[in-house]
Amino acid sequence: MSLIVQKFGGTSVADAECIRRVAGIVAKTYRAGHGVVVVLSAQGDTTDELIAKAREVSRSPSPRELDMLLSTGEQISVALFAMAVETLGLPVVSLTGWQIGLKTDRNYGNARIKKVECERLRVELDRKNIVVVCGFQGVNRYDDVTTLGRGGSDTTAVAIAAALKADLCQIYTDVDGVYTTDPRSVPEARKLDEITYDEMLELSSLGARVLHNRSVEMAKRYHVPLEVISSFTGQPGTQVKEGLKVEQLNVSGVTRDDNVARIALVGLDDMPGKAFRIFSLLAAKKINVDVILQSIGRGDTKDISFTVPKQMLNAARAILEEHRDAIGYTDMVISDEISKVSIVGAGMVGNAGVAAEMFEALAAANINIQMISTSEIKVSVLIDARDAKQAVQVIHDKFFG
Amino acid sequence: MSLIVQKFGGTSVADAECIRRVAGIVAKTYRAGHGVVVVLSAQGDTTDELIAKAREVSRSPSPRELDMLLSTGEQISVALFAMAVETLGLPVVSLTGWQIGLKTDRNYGNARIKKVECERLRVELDRKNIVVVCGFQGVNRYDDVTTLGRGGSDTTAVAIAAALKADLCQIYTDVDGVYTTDPRSVPEARKLDEITYDEMLELSSLGARVLHNRSVEMAKRYHVPLEVISSFTGQPGTQVKEGLKVEQLNVSGVTRDDNVARIALVGLDDMPGKAFRIFSLLAAKKINVDVILQSIGRGDTKDISFTVPKQMLNAARAILEEHRDAIGYTDMVISDEISKVSIVGAGMVGNAGVAAEMFEALAAANINIQMISTSEIKVSVLIDARDAKQAVQVIHDKFFG
Repeated sequence: MSLIVQKFGGTSVADAECIRRVAGIVAKTYRAGHGVVVVLSAQGDTTDELIAKAREVSRSPSPRELDMLLSTGEQISVALFAMAVETLGLPVVSLTGWQIGLKTDRNYGNARIKKVECERLRVELDRKNIVVVCGFQGVNRYDDVTTLGRGGSDTTAVAIAAALKADLCQIYTDVDGVYTTDPRSVPEARKLDEITYDEMLELSSLGARVLHNRSVEMAKRYHVPLEVISSFTGQPGTQVKEGLKVEQLNVSGVTRDDNVARIALVGLDDMPGKAFRIFSLLAAKKINVDVILQSIGRGDTKDISFTVPKQMLNAARAILEEHRDAIGYTDMVISDEISKVSIVGAGMVGNAGVAAEMFEALAAANINIQMISTSEIKVSVLIDARDAKQAVQVIHDKFFG
Repeated sequence: MSLIVQKFGGTSVADAECIRRVAGIVAKTYRAGHGVVVVLSAQGDTTDELIAKAREVSRSPSPRELDMLLSTGEQISVALFAMAVETLGLPVVSLTGWQIGLKTDRNYGNARIKKVECERLRVELDRKNIVVVCGFQGVNRYDDVTTLGRGGSDTTAVAIAAALKADLCQIYTDVDGVYTTDPRSVPEARKLDEITYDEMLELSSLGARVLHNRSVEMAKRYHVPLEVISSFTGQPGTQVKEGLKVEQLNVSGVTRDDNVARIALVGLDDMPGKAFRIFSLLAAKKINVDVILQSIGRGDTKDISFTVPKQMLNAARAILEEHRDAIGYTDMVISDEISKVSIVGAGMVGNAGVAAEMFEALAAANINIQMISTSEIKVSVLIDARDAKQAVQVIHDKFFG
């Protein structure tokens, strides 16, 4: 007998019919003799509806009360889902974030999980119950309700799998696995049977929306075997595992991120501490910085360029303008019509030729590269947003065509 | 500075506009220098909507999961309400049943309050927060969510007022106080400024829907001063207090209950233990029995008649038929087209003339009395349902005309 954590997103439990189908998947797993913990998101549009209700009352509700409100969404999901499992004649119990002792920090709206107290979960599993748990939510040290922000339900599932030392954590979604690139824009994309945590991390941080980074990071840290699988087809999905170079491919996937803006600070004094000053200012405002490039000093000055998510561009610009004198730059150049296109693959470590092949594909399509950034398992380029779709296509053709 | 608990029902917080109005009432109390705990029900139709969702998934959801589902209704209310108070610039915090440590028994859907742990409430009051609490809900000893059933939010408010030794518990409702009879059917009804717990108990148990019995019983036991008041007019309402014979009236009110069915068991052996057997069977099925009358034995047999709420009639009939031989009756006679009309008043103790006046009024209107039941502060008659409206009118005319 294995212990399996199965996570289903909001579209998978959107209405009574969806709930019944998913209950069928869970029942099949349970009847095969496995212990099952089910983690659910709020139904379809519930969160949006709750936010709309809040807006009717207040333009800027406090994060604490917003979390109090939004956490009802998953509670509704788990109760309805448990009722559906009851009709199948199987023993089931639903539990909220506080009931399973999912403890977080105080960062309302985007809380980090500190620990999952397993006592209640174990009691219910020992009783042979199917345990249905609210994703996305926890409580802080004062027992106030918090929500986990983006990817919160995936992260809940992985955290529970880690705490219970589960044999497998299945993330059910509306796609049937991880692809070499987005199959909606490149029809030739093909599904990967396996991928490493690191590759998945790069893919999800680069805009492939199958799994959120936080959940993959946690799975990697606690050695939780993941599977990305479709809640519609029931076919085997993609296994996310440890190890290097799964499948004999240099490149596992091509991905694209349009939610990116570039800021260049030009004419900085070529002195130590500039980068520290800039990025500590941004970090203090919780502005996430991605690709960072620093030019080689020319004479007395240098330039620093970096990317931020588009919605943080204004905040970043404001803080940098405010501290213009302290930082000491002559010009700030902003571009928000760009995309980041990347190739990812554990197999490309030490294989410089892979990057060259990527650049060759872009050159052949006459696509100009604005910035390049590389890590051990990825190569990213910033290009004009208008070229992004074609860039993904030609790179994918190059490696998987 | 006083500590005031203010309870508002579902219609008072039905939408954003209602919430803002009620937030204004609460803010006024707070700005007058009082500590305020606000107890809220679920918004308007939320509970019905949630039940409809449950029905789509299961015909007979378990009470545990139903409570898990329904308890989200009040949580939505308190979060939205707290947001509305925030917009007024006042410090506020919302809390669920489990967060305030409202402990109940395990009787899902109709749980009894065992205690309210005051620690969190006191901390928030000491911080000068307006504390907004979910009515109707608590947790059992296993930390599973329970709901309190009918009158649950009133009872929550009184329990909190008792636990905190509050100076006043105000029950805001859509009527502006307690009347001598239902003002919707008798226009001459007049509002009472004061009423005793005992009178209120009889009135609410007899069908006046202003306050549920459970809350009044608890208020009486813990000496919680109550006020029934309109959330629309803001005018002084009715004080519910200790003491006898408030106002120099023999009779405080006339009330009517249509939700009543009568069962008569005829031809019982005139032996000890018959009543015990009958009513222990009904109690085991949680069937509430109200008026009980036993005829004086005639020869070897006697009859026992009693009333039950209409929705429990079938269950009562089934259990009595099942045990027909053990009970030993010759006939069961059922009537569900009856009403109970009662007069209530602490002033009628030892004043036999009051009952006589009531019977006189009914006789003058040619209304037949089927059963009579009296206590120290009330006289109830069972009459044909068709006569009920007229009966209330003529009795009210007699005492208040």
